[in-house]
Amino acid sequence: MPTQFDPPSGTRDFLAREFETRERAFALIRSVFSRYGFEPLATPAFERLDVLMGKYGEDGDKLIFKILRRGEHEGTGEADLALRYDLTVPLARVAAAYGSQLPVPYKRYAMASVWRADRPGRGRYREFTQCDVDTLGSTSVLADAEIISAVHDVLDGLGIGDFRFLLNSRRVLAGLLEAFDVPAELGAGVLITLDKLDKLAPAEVAAELAGRGLPEAGAAELVAAMTADDAAERIRDVLKSSEEGSAGLDEVDGVLSLVAGQLPPGRVAFAPRMVRGLSYYTGPIWEASAPGVAGSLAGGGRYDHLIEQLGGPDTPATGGALGVERILLLLPPEQEAHTRLDVAVTVMDQRYAARSFAFAAAARSAGLRASVYLGASGKLGRQLKWASDQGARWSLIYGGAEEEAGVVTVRDMTTGEQTAIPAGELGDYLARLAAQDGAGAG
Amino acid sequence: MPTQFDPPSGTRDFLAREFETRERAFALIRSVFSRYGFEPLATPAFERLDVLMGKYGEDGDKLIFKILRRGEHEGTGEADLALRYDLTVPLARVAAAYGSQLPVPYKRYAMASVWRADRPGRGRYREFTQCDVDTLGSTSVLADAEIISAVHDVLDGLGIGDFRFLLNSRRVLAGLLEAFDVPAELGAGVLITLDKLDKLAPAEVAAELAGRGLPEAGAAELVAAMTADDAAERIRDVLKSSEEGSAGLDEVDGVLSLVAGQLPPGRVAFAPRMVRGLSYYTGPIWEASAPGVAGSLAGGGRYDHLIEQLGGPDTPATGGALGVERILLLLPPEQEAHTRLDVAVTVMDQRYAARSFAFAAAARSAGLRASVYLGASGKLGRQLKWASDQGARWSLIYGGAEEEAGVVTVRDMTTGEQTAIPAGELGDYLARLAAQDGAGAG
Repeated sequence: MPTQFDPPSGTRDFLAREFETRERAFALIRSVFSRYGFEPLATPAFERLDVLMGKYGEDGDKLIFKILRRGEHEGTGEADLALRYDLTVPLARVAAAYGSQLPVPYKRYAMASVWRADRPGRGRYREFTQCDVDTLGSTSVLADAEIISAVHDVLDGLGIGDFRFLLNSRRVLAGLLEAFDVPAELGAGVLITLDKLDKLAPAEVAAELAGRGLPEAGAAELVAAMTADDAAERIRDVLKSSEEGSAGLDEVDGVLSLVAGQLPPGRVAFAPRMVRGLSYYTGPIWEASAPGVAGSLAGGGRYDHLIEQLGGPDTPATGGALGVERILLLLPPEQEAHTRLDVAVTVMDQRYAARSFAFAAAARSAGLRASVYLGASGKLGRQLKWASDQGARWSLIYGGAEEEAGVVTVRDMTTGEQTAIPAGELGDYLARLAAQDGAGAG
Repeated sequence: MPTQFDPPSGTRDFLAREFETRERAFALIRSVFSRYGFEPLATPAFERLDVLMGKYGEDGDKLIFKILRRGEHEGTGEADLALRYDLTVPLARVAAAYGSQLPVPYKRYAMASVWRADRPGRGRYREFTQCDVDTLGSTSVLADAEIISAVHDVLDGLGIGDFRFLLNSRRVLAGLLEAFDVPAELGAGVLITLDKLDKLAPAEVAAELAGRGLPEAGAAELVAAMTADDAAERIRDVLKSSEEGSAGLDEVDGVLSLVAGQLPPGRVAFAPRMVRGLSYYTGPIWEASAPGVAGSLAGGGRYDHLIEQLGGPDTPATGGALGVERILLLLPPEQEAHTRLDVAVTVMDQRYAARSFAFAAAARSAGLRASVYLGASGKLGRQLKWASDQGARWSLIYGGAEEEAGVVTVRDMTTGEQTAIPAGELGDYLARLAAQDGAGAG
C-alpha cells in the first residue's frame, strides 16, 4: 500500500544494491558503444514545450509531463517546458543546433531517464531509462549492420544468453505489397494485419485482410506465402518481380553478410513479415527478442527522413533502442553478496579514535573500502556485529593491549582468525590480503 | 544569440568531450565515497508537490519547477508534482520510507541533477548537478570528521591543488553569544553580521552590530576579539566561560585531532567566526575554499533535527555538499586530446566491406575502439582524412593488393608508416600495439 513516503506513482527509489546492479549494466552498455566509436550525448531533462508537442502523435502528446510557467505567469496555468519523452527528439534538436560542430557521420549513444504519464503497471514506469544508439549522416548499409552488431555485443555482454535478431526492410515490405498487387491506399493497413500472424491463425489474418478490401483469393495467397515453411525463400522469389523489393532484399542480404562473420550462426534471420513501427522507417528494420520474453529486447532501423520531420537537418539516419528496463529484469542474479565495506574498523575507546581513523585511511590507501565504527557502543561484540552487517571481510581491533604491543589486531570475519600486525605495517599487510582476495572498491 | 535549437534557458547539452570530462570527475567522486563505505542512492527526478513545498523558505518555493496535472485535470492549471530542488528532502523521504531496511548508520551519497528556476547567469544554471554525502544515525564526532576527510580526498583526487577547510561549530557560536552577553533574540542577526567580517571593515561590522541593538562597547569588544591576530586563541579563552562554548570547542578539537593525521598540515583550521547556513546546523560546521575562487567548493555540518523537520524520522545527521559545477570549472585542463577511435577501418570497395567489418571486430576484441568508414567515398585520401578527424591512432587498409597477399595494411596515423600484417594475425598484432601504446576504450 502506498504511503506518503513512497516515491510518486510510477517512479522508483534505487537503494544501493539495485543502483549498483543497474550501474554495472549501464557501464557495460557504455563501454560497448564506446568501443564502436559511438560517443555520448546528454541533453536537459526538459525541453521547450513546442519542441516536444506534436512529435509523438495525439496519444503521445497526452503522456507528456508539462511544466507550469513560473512567477507571475504561474497563475495562467500554462506550461512552457516539458519533460523529455524520448531521446530522439532531443537528438534532432542537437543535430540542428550544433550542425557542423558534429562529426560526420555523427555516431552517438544516449542513456537517460525519460518520463511518460502512462498508467503505471507491472514493468511500466513513469520514469524509466532509455538507451538509444544512432548514426546520423550515413546511407551505407554498413551503418545499419554496425548498430545491430553493437546491440548484439551489448546483449551478449550483459549475459542474455538466448536471443536472436529478426531482420527485414521497409523496402521489402513495399515490394511485397507491390508484388501482391495491394492497392497503395491499403498498404499500411495490410501490413498492420500481417504483423498479427504471430498471434492469429492464418485464416483469421486472411479474413481481416479481406475485410480491409483485399480480394479474398489475393488475401489467401498472400497469407499462404507468408506462413509457408519456406516463407523466406518463397518471398525472396516473389520480391524479384519488384524493383523496390529487390532493393530491399539487397539491403537485408547486405546486413546479413556483414554481421554473419561477427555473430553466432542463426543469431540473425530474415523475417519478411516483421513490420515494426512502420510510419517512419525507410530501410532495414530489426528487432531482438528472447524466447519466453514478451516483446522485444531491442529494436530499430533506418529512418532517413525523421530527423528532418522532428525539426533537425535533412540527414539519413539509422539507429536502435535497447529496452533497458526489460533487459534489466532478465539479467542473471548477482553472484556476489552485496557488501558495503571490505574493512570495518572498531573504536574500542574514544582515546583510540584518531588511531582507528588512521587505520581506516591506511586500508583505503590499500584500495579497500573502509570505515570506522560510528555508533555509541564500546562493546566489541556489538561492533563486530556491525562489521558483519556491512559484509566486511576484515575487522581491525585496537585497544589497550594492542596499544601496549604497538600492533593492530586484524580479524578475518569469515574464519574468526585474528592476527596481530605491527601498526606501521598495516597498510602493506592489507594490500597483500586485498590482492589475494580480489577485494577492492572497484 | 539563442536560437530555437538551443536547450532551454539555463540548461546545457553535453556533447562527448564535456560529457566525458564530467563523467571522469563523477567517477572519481563515486569511487572516493564508496571507499569510505558511503553507498549510492537515486531518487526520482520529481516528487509529489507537497513533499517539496514549504521546505526551502518562501524564496526557495518560488524557484521550484512545478509539473501540471494531466488528462482531464490539465485544464485546472494546477500542479501535483515538482522537480527535485535538492537532494536532502528526498533523503528525508527515503529515511522515512525505508526506515529499518536502511543500515545504521545510513551512510549515503547522491549525485544527480537538481532544478531551480533561478535567473540563469554566468555559472548559474537551472539544471545542475549536486553531490551530497551524509551520515544518518550517528551522533559521533567521528562521523563529522569522516565526511570532511572524504570531501578532502575528493578535492585532492580531482587535482584541486590549493584548498583548505574552515571548521567551526554551531555550539561555539552559541557559546560566543553567551560569553559576550548577546541577548538571545539578537543572536541570529548578530551572527549574520559577524559573517560579514571577510567583506567589511571591523568598524563597519561593529556599527552594524550596534544598529542591531548591541551596546556600542560590547559590539566593539566582540569585533576586536574576532579580528585579533590571535583571534582563535582569544576566542578559545572566552568560550571556556560558557558550557555550550566549551562543548563546541570540544567538537572542533575532536574533528581537528581526527583529521590531523590524514590531511596535510594547515588544511583545516578553526574559524570561530564562520557562520554558514545557521538555521538548521546543530554542531560542527565546515567549508572548503580555494584562494582566488569566490564562494566555497564544499560545505556542510551536523544537522541533528533537519531530517525530522523535513518529514523524516528523528535522527541525528551530518553531511556535506560538493559544489560540483564550481569544482568542474577549476579542474586542470585535459592532458590528452579527445579522440573517438583508436582504429579506423577503411572500406576501399563494397566487396571488401565484410572483411573491413571483421577487422573492426578484431580490433574491438583487442580492447580498442574501432569503426569502419561509413561514408560514400572510395578514395583512400578521403577515408584517411576521416580517420585523422576521429583521432585514430591506426588505420587499417584492405584493397585488391592486400586481398591478393592475404594481408591487411596497418597505417600508423602519427608517422604514416605502413605495415602489412597477415589477416589472421591482426587481432594479436593490434593487442600488442595497444599494450605498448596504452590505448583502449577504458
